[in-house]
Order: sequence, then structure tokens, then C-alpha cells
Amino acid sequence: MMGGRAEARTRSALASREPRAPAPAVLAFDLGGTRIKAGIVQGARVSALCVEPTDDREESAALAALLRLGHRLMDTREVAAVGVSVKGIVDPAGGVVRDVKERLMGLVGQPLASIVAREFGRPAYIENDARMYALGEVRYGAGQGHRNVVCLTLGTGVGSGVVLDGRVLRGPRGVGGILAGHATVQVDGPACTCGNVGCLEALIGAAGFVRLADEAVARDSSSSVLRHAPRTPQRIFEAAADGDALASALTHTFATYLGAGIVTAIHAYDPDIVVLGGGMMHSFAPSLPRVQAYVDAHAWTVPRGRVRIVPAALGDAAALIGVAALTTETASLS
Amino acid sequence: MMGGRAEARTRSALASREPRAPAPAVLAFDLGGTRIKAGIVQGARVSALCVEPTDDREESAALAALLRLGHRLMDTREVAAVGVSVKGIVDPAGGVVRDVKERLMGLVGQPLASIVAREFGRPAYIENDARMYALGEVRYGAGQGHRNVVCLTLGTGVGSGVVLDGRVLRGPRGVGGILAGHATVQVDGPACTCGNVGCLEALIGAAGFVRLADEAVARDSSSSVLRHAPRTPQRIFEAAADGDALASALTHTFATYLGAGIVTAIHAYDPDIVVLGGGMMHSFAPSLPRVQAYVDAHAWTVPRGRVRIVPAALGDAAALIGVAALTTETASLS
Repeated sequence: MMGGRAEARTRSALASREPRAPAPAVLAFDLGGTRIKAGIVQGARVSALCVEPTDDREESAALAALLRLGHRLMDTREVAAVGVSVKGIVDPAGGVVRDVKERLMGLVGQPLASIVAREFGRPAYIENDARMYALGEVRYGAGQGHRNVVCLTLGTGVGSGVVLDGRVLRGPRGVGGILAGHATVQVDGPACTCGNVGCLEALIGAAGFVRLADEAVARDSSSSVLRHAPRTPQRIFEAAADGDALASALTHTFATYLGAGIVTAIHAYDPDIVVLGGGMMHSFAPSLPRVQAYVDAHAWTVPRGRVRIVPAALGDAAALIGVAALTTETASLS
Repeated sequence: MMGGRAEARTRSALASREPRAPAPAVLAFDLGGTRIKAGIVQGARVSALCVEPTDDREESAALAALLRLGHRLMDTREVAAVGVSVKGIVDPAGGVVRDVKERLMGLVGQPLASIVAREFGRPAYIENDARMYALGEVRYGAGQGHRNVVCLTLGTGVGSGVVLDGRVLRGPRGVGGILAGHATVQVDGPACTCGNVGCLEALIGAAGFVRLADEAVARDSSSSVLRHAPRTPQRIFEAAADGDALASALTHTFATYLGAGIVTAIHAYDPDIVVLGGGMMHSFAPSLPRVQAYVDAHAWTVPRGRVRIVPAALGDAAALIGVAALTTETASLS
């Protein structure tokens, strides 16, 4: 592990190597299970952001919304290229979504990058959203200046993206780095929607964690706060911060599972730093020291030291910023 | 996933790109916790192999044995370079062993590569043994022709090595790829010597698996075969093959834990193939289909297909062959 001064030197050396200003404007999309975001992105600056719910009742709705939002934004600003961050397993070379667990099923197998490129008359690139979230955080957020970063997003699902030696890990089938949320941490644990059992996502994804809370309340109804539904992760974390014993125990369990998943990721990828983002992070943040303590006690690092765990810095816009960075870097390379 | 014909094409294309004949002769060492192996290695051919037990009562014994064996072999044959495969976390750039869990403690922090290079008057390289085992299998064994391979070795410990896009994964601190055996698969499981809990190694490393068997026999003494110690993994696997019910249940548990660890590795690295080697593999091999079935049922691959799990092909010499390959490739690059 580097000392403060050496680390600072490396950070600035890296920063100066990165092409920063003026970054070209990119029309960027982030296509999720419930919302589609579109914006003009220049470096870390997002302007003219539009957000719409995605309607998954109709297969072609997401794509139609993307094209409509894109044209609206293109009227306001000249852009050099288009980037699409999208959930699921993506083949960036083919410009195709290969698989999604649920929602956006209508996109699977469609030549998304070609459709977008033709529609907007610009080069277009697509990539997995968790990977783009990670790239955004590495280029402009909490991972800035580090060449080896694991980023986990805590929300409905547990997403992940990995940057190794400055490059986004993809793997030959597009699986590399995005399935850290589907590492088994409890082999006799609950089933996950991905087909695995006892995944991090099955345990601390929103649905899994709420199920855990429901079971805990069924056994122990002493918590006046949690006795009544809905028991959302945010309510549980907030009740824990207010001293509710059952909520504290649940939050501790959450931190332990998350810690175990992070230890596995550290052992797999040897990151300089771990970045945690996603919708749950705001209310969970006060418990971050518990996760750090678990990881300090359990990870095998050399010399036995700290891999720092830090909150993401770009919020909801990370994937938009990441896919704009990818688009800029790829377009200027090709 | 590629069809048979496309895969065969890729294999032969890769094979023809690898520099094969005539490979230069390398003086190669494999320095383990209990044995030191030394040989002259040319490609996949190991000649003049010497094996000695390592005496860990004396800190300098392993290094002294290495130098003595090396001089004996150098008298018999001209070599171009020296490669040392060694357990523990290795800094190949510095030529130093950074950390070991147990045994060979005397090597930690010593400038091993420099000492060896000076002593033999040849360029010398060192690397982690599980990583070199994997490289050996990729270049000349069961992983041949694949660019993305995860290799696990099942023995006293559970080692691993990962090759991504044809290159050995190292990570900035030398941790990358070698700690797949220390992924948590049971967060409330037993403590591991690495400091983590419920690691694959804690559950199915020799000591952990025998402890599991001891506990099972204490609960259920119906097995006439397992009632009497010593309950080695080999005896358990063989009793299972002979139809012993308790041994079968234990072997099934072993396959489940191993399968969960492999699913995590597939989700982390997106390998084309998984290679299993190490001392346990001979007696465990009949149960390999159980592991494949577990992985087929639980891994998220695209399209949902098979990541084949195959036994290693080079046996005990894999790490020697791997470190010779690394040495040849590194020396000719520099």
C-alpha cells in the first residue's frame, strides 16, 4: 500500500495523463429497468438531463423512448457521438444486449448500437450500466486517480464494475466484472433471480433484504418501528441509526454480507480502492465503518493493510458520465 | 459461446501464434511448503527433475536447498535463464516474496530473484506457484488454446491462477487471481488460516474437509469405512465411489462447495474453461460431473450454456512448466 505522498504523486501523474479539457459533447443514455435517463455530457458535466419511466409492458417502448429523448436533446446541442449505458449483459463489439434477467427483454438481440448510430448519424457505443457507473466514478468520481477499482452499486440489485490497470474489465462474453453481486457468500442461502443461490444480491438486494427483515419481525415483534410494513431498506437503516435494536441487528447482518462480498472482490481483483454507490447508499452510509471493519479483519492484503471503502461521488449520473467517457475514449481511439 | 468448429479454428490460430519450438532450456524451481522441485524445462518437457523435502525448521534451509539443487542441475546442462515458482504473495517486479501464510517464512522480504540471478549468472524471474500452475496448464496442458482460464488446485490449500486475454492476472499488489480459494462461500462458516471465514479453502482444503468428516462421523457412526481414522480426503472419495452413504454425502458437500466457488470465479472472470488440478483431483475425479452439474445449474453465462470444467493435464510438473514459460516469455520480451 502506498503512503500518502506517493499516492498523491501517482494520482496527479494519472490525472495529467487523462484527456480532460475540452471534452467533446456526447449524447448519453442510461437505460435501466424502471427509468431511462438521457443527457448531454461533457466530461463530468451533465446538461439538459431528461428522465422518463420505462414502460416494460410494451417491448419496443424503451427503444422508442430513447429515440424520442435523443432527438429532443440533439435539437439543443451539437454532439460528437452517442453512448448508451444499459442493464444486462452486453456485447459492446456487436453493439447488442445479450441477456437481461428481467425488464428490457425487448432489447435482447437487437442491433442497438447500429440502430442508435443510424438514427442520430453519429458513432454509437453501448455498454453495461454497472460497468459504466464504475468507469464514471474512476474517471471523475470517488475512484479518480486509481488504476484498479471495484465499484458496487446497492439498490434493487447489486451491480458491479471493475477497472483493472486503468481499463474496464469485460471478459470475452461480457460477463467480466459485472457479476460480483452474484458471488455466492452463503451457499445454503436463498435463491437469486440470476439462477444462483446465496448471492450477495439475493441477500442484500432490496427484495432479499426486506424478506430478511420480514422473517426477523415474524420471529421478534419487539421493534415498534419495524412492526408495520412497508419495511424498506431505508426505513431499516434509519431505524438502526435511531437505536432500534432489531433494525440494528439487521443492519449489522447487511454489513456482514456486504463485507464478505467485498472481501471476495478484493481477493479476486486486488483493487486499490472499493467504491460503493446506488440508491441504498445514502441511508446506509452511517454504517460504512462496520463494513470497513469487517473487510479490515477478513481480507488478505499485502502487507496486511487497508483497502479503503468509499462512497461514490457522482450519484445518479455516474453511468451517464461513464458511458460518455467510454464513448469519447473509444471514438478517439478508432 | 462458440460452436465446435469456430472454437477449433480459434484454438489452432492461437496455437500457431505461440512460440513453440525450439524452446530454450530453463532452470526451473517450484518451492512449496513441503517440497522443493528443480528441473531443466524446455517447453513442456521436464528433464533431470530433483525433488527434496523443504525443512522449515531452519529459515534459510529452503534457499540453501534451492541453490544446491540448482548447481547440481547446471552442471548437466546449459540454461538460458532461471525461473522460481514459489508459494505466497509475490512481487515479480521486485523479485521478492511479500507474504506467506505459513512455512517458507524465511523467504519473506529477501531479494530472491537477485540472489538466484547472481548465484547462477542468468536472468531470473519469480512468481506465485498457483499462478504458474495455471500458466503451465494454459500453455501446454488442459487450458491450451484458450485465452481466458481459471485454474484451481485442490490440495492442502485451494490455490488459483487466472489468465485473462492470454495474460496472467497479477494485480498491483500481486493478489490478483491467486485468492479464488479464499472467496467466502459460507459467511457463517469456519475460520480460515488466511484470516477470512467460510473460504473455499477453509471448507474443502484438506484440513477443513477432514474436520467436516470428523464432525459428520461424530454425529453418525454408521459408516464402517470412515469410523476409523485417519479420514483423508482420498479415503473419503474412494469410500464414496464404493457406495458408502456417509462418504457419498460428504463428497456431495465437497462438490457443492467447490461448485459454488467455481460459480463465483466464473462470475468474476468470465473464463472460457475452468481447470481443476492438485493432489486431491485423482481421487475426486469421478465426482467431477457433480461439480459440472452444480455449475451448469447456478452460473449466469451468456447464452446460458456451459463453462466446461476439466481436469489438469500436466500433474505435479505444471508449475515448473509454467514458470519456465513465464521466464522464456519475459526474457525474450525484455
